[in-house]
Amino acid sequence: MALTPTDFDYMAQAFRLAERGLYTTMPNPRVGCVLVKDGQVIAEGWHVRAGEGHAEVNALRIAGENARGATAYVSLEPCSHTGRTGPCSQALVDAGVARVVYAMEDPNPLVSGNGIALLRAAGVEVDGPVLEDDARALNPGFIKRMERKKPLVRCKLAMSLDGRTAMESGESKWITGPKARADVQRLRARSCAIISGVDSLLQDNSSLTVRADELGLPHAEEIAARQPLRVILDSTLRLPRNALLFKQSSPILLVHNGSVDAAQCEGWPAFVELLALPAKDGRIDLAALLRELVQRQCNEVLVEAGATLAGSFLRRGLLDEIIIYMAPKLLGSNARPIFELPLDTMSSSLALKIKDIRAVGRDWRLTAVPDTEY
Amino acid sequence: MALTPTDFDYMAQAFRLAERGLYTTMPNPRVGCVLVKDGQVIAEGWHVRAGEGHAEVNALRIAGENARGATAYVSLEPCSHTGRTGPCSQALVDAGVARVVYAMEDPNPLVSGNGIALLRAAGVEVDGPVLEDDARALNPGFIKRMERKKPLVRCKLAMSLDGRTAMESGESKWITGPKARADVQRLRARSCAIISGVDSLLQDNSSLTVRADELGLPHAEEIAARQPLRVILDSTLRLPRNALLFKQSSPILLVHNGSVDAAQCEGWPAFVELLALPAKDGRIDLAALLRELVQRQCNEVLVEAGATLAGSFLRRGLLDEIIIYMAPKLLGSNARPIFELPLDTMSSSLALKIKDIRAVGRDWRLTAVPDTEY
Repeated sequence: MALTPTDFDYMAQAFRLAERGLYTTMPNPRVGCVLVKDGQVIAEGWHVRAGEGHAEVNALRIAGENARGATAYVSLEPCSHTGRTGPCSQALVDAGVARVVYAMEDPNPLVSGNGIALLRAAGVEVDGPVLEDDARALNPGFIKRMERKKPLVRCKLAMSLDGRTAMESGESKWITGPKARADVQRLRARSCAIISGVDSLLQDNSSLTVRADELGLPHAEEIAARQPLRVILDSTLRLPRNALLFKQSSPILLVHNGSVDAAQCEGWPAFVELLALPAKDGRIDLAALLRELVQRQCNEVLVEAGATLAGSFLRRGLLDEIIIYMAPKLLGSNARPIFELPLDTMSSSLALKIKDIRAVGRDWRLTAVPDTEY
Repeated sequence: MALTPTDFDYMAQAFRLAERGLYTTMPNPRVGCVLVKDGQVIAEGWHVRAGEGHAEVNALRIAGENARGATAYVSLEPCSHTGRTGPCSQALVDAGVARVVYAMEDPNPLVSGNGIALLRAAGVEVDGPVLEDDARALNPGFIKRMERKKPLVRCKLAMSLDGRTAMESGESKWITGPKARADVQRLRARSCAIISGVDSLLQDNSSLTVRADELGLPHAEEIAARQPLRVILDSTLRLPRNALLFKQSSPILLVHNGSVDAAQCEGWPAFVELLALPAKDGRIDLAALLRELVQRQCNEVLVEAGATLAGSFLRRGLLDEIIIYMAPKLLGSNARPIFELPLDTMSSSLALKIKDIRAVGRDWRLTAVPDTEY
């Protein structure tokens, strides 16, 4: 059957449902499902949390017997495997769904297309992909992990209009206003892990947690109940054990270079895991770190670091997205740079593409990506 | 008579007419006039060039006898003085115009209100001010010069996303793309004077002229026929006489500190005027420079300088507007800062307000003003 404008509308509705899982589905993708029969929406479902029902199953549960003969709109190809829940494509067949419209195939190359094949084999009409770019935007980290075995790495920075992140002394509180800081809280909340370095923690003594009262979101307590893994690069374990970071008991991965004393690795609280990773010139191998985070099913990773660590990620080509909160003020020419990035000629400058600029309170948020076409 | 929605529409039309003089009326203001009779526009006029007809006179000439009983919408109070042309308020009376709607009073405190009084005394109905903020935006420089005896000073800078204007070596061609550079040409074209410093000229060898083929405007040749005064701060006259600047014969004001040899002041071409201004620590007094430019009837002045001179204007509180063309690239942490501005603490940071951000080709233009309410 050819796709109609109505199909696109229902798919957009499925996307909006999927977005409700933005802060909670990890390590699973955000998925939405709309069941339509005789031109009426008979049920909506979305995936809320790993271990709980998938979007299709949640919608089918609401529809019950009424699902027979319905069309299901799903933002991602229904799964064909039995994970913590049964396969969704079989559930759609069992419920008697007549047609399935999907937005994108499963990005996992090992199972991609299997769900569609299972549906078709059972006589279900299947249409798609539909609005694939929008569907991909829902799960950039999950998709990158599935397709390329790497997490999506986002670097967040706050700077002044003149590109500075702190005064020469290190003083940086606060460059941006409360609305920009709440936006950062939401970035943290959608991330599986937050990477920071010992130097910025020694400077700022941040806790790197998601704080419900700063999220500015409904169901904030529920969202903050899942805390992203805090990944701290501390080659020689210099961070003092009384740092604010260790006051909250959400998981911490403390990464060192393996050259530390046994005593330094002892006596940590249970939520702190120590990990040795290869290092070069005293610096942890960032690619190895990202491989480790993929092993831990991290989809979206947020780098919140100073100019040196952020610059290392940038120079090594490991950043997918740079989010800059730009405050309308000048910190002056002695202040610290946004990236530690020594370049000599214009031809060596790094080209970016600005995908989005918008006001966030009195500050501005810029979203940039590396520009390979430059 | 009370103002009607139609009155606002016609005034907006007068503003659009005034804008046609954006690049040509200096040192006069941009003014537009619409004549309306029986619900029909019978004539439009705008001021094109100093020495030629004012907006009202141009419209009246088109309307002829038909002006009797009409309403005139003018973006600025009709003048009451006999300058190079006769007083416009008298011309409106003589033509039998029944009603005048004006957007703002004459900003010159010595004559403000006189035109309105003359019209009223002659029995013409007068309404206003109407849409005064928009009217003021047409002539920010003229108004500031009239009200405060100072020119409007705009500083234009091109920077990378990380706030750098050139590599450490000084290399800076080109940070921004052709559309941003065309936009700069239009900034030059609307200015009465362009201020630059010897150091950036030694570095870039710019000519600082308006180039018709780069304006991207209709009537570009006509616009480029009037060149802004090129004001060069060169305390000790270091700029070589073969600099590109001197290849084009539009006026140059070469400002030195008075300590130079008589020989250095001799043998310049006729379009180069030398001027001694007071200096402190070898640097020209910028406030004295602006006073000089007001004497020369400069409305809008554009600073196109390096970090040092731009920083001096900024630190002395002499900038009304900062226009930044931001390129989506990183020049790195060794590159040159946008402003030479040594600050120590966050509390000493300079607060700005970003009035506008928009895409200009692949670059972004930010318009900032000092934020006194911060």
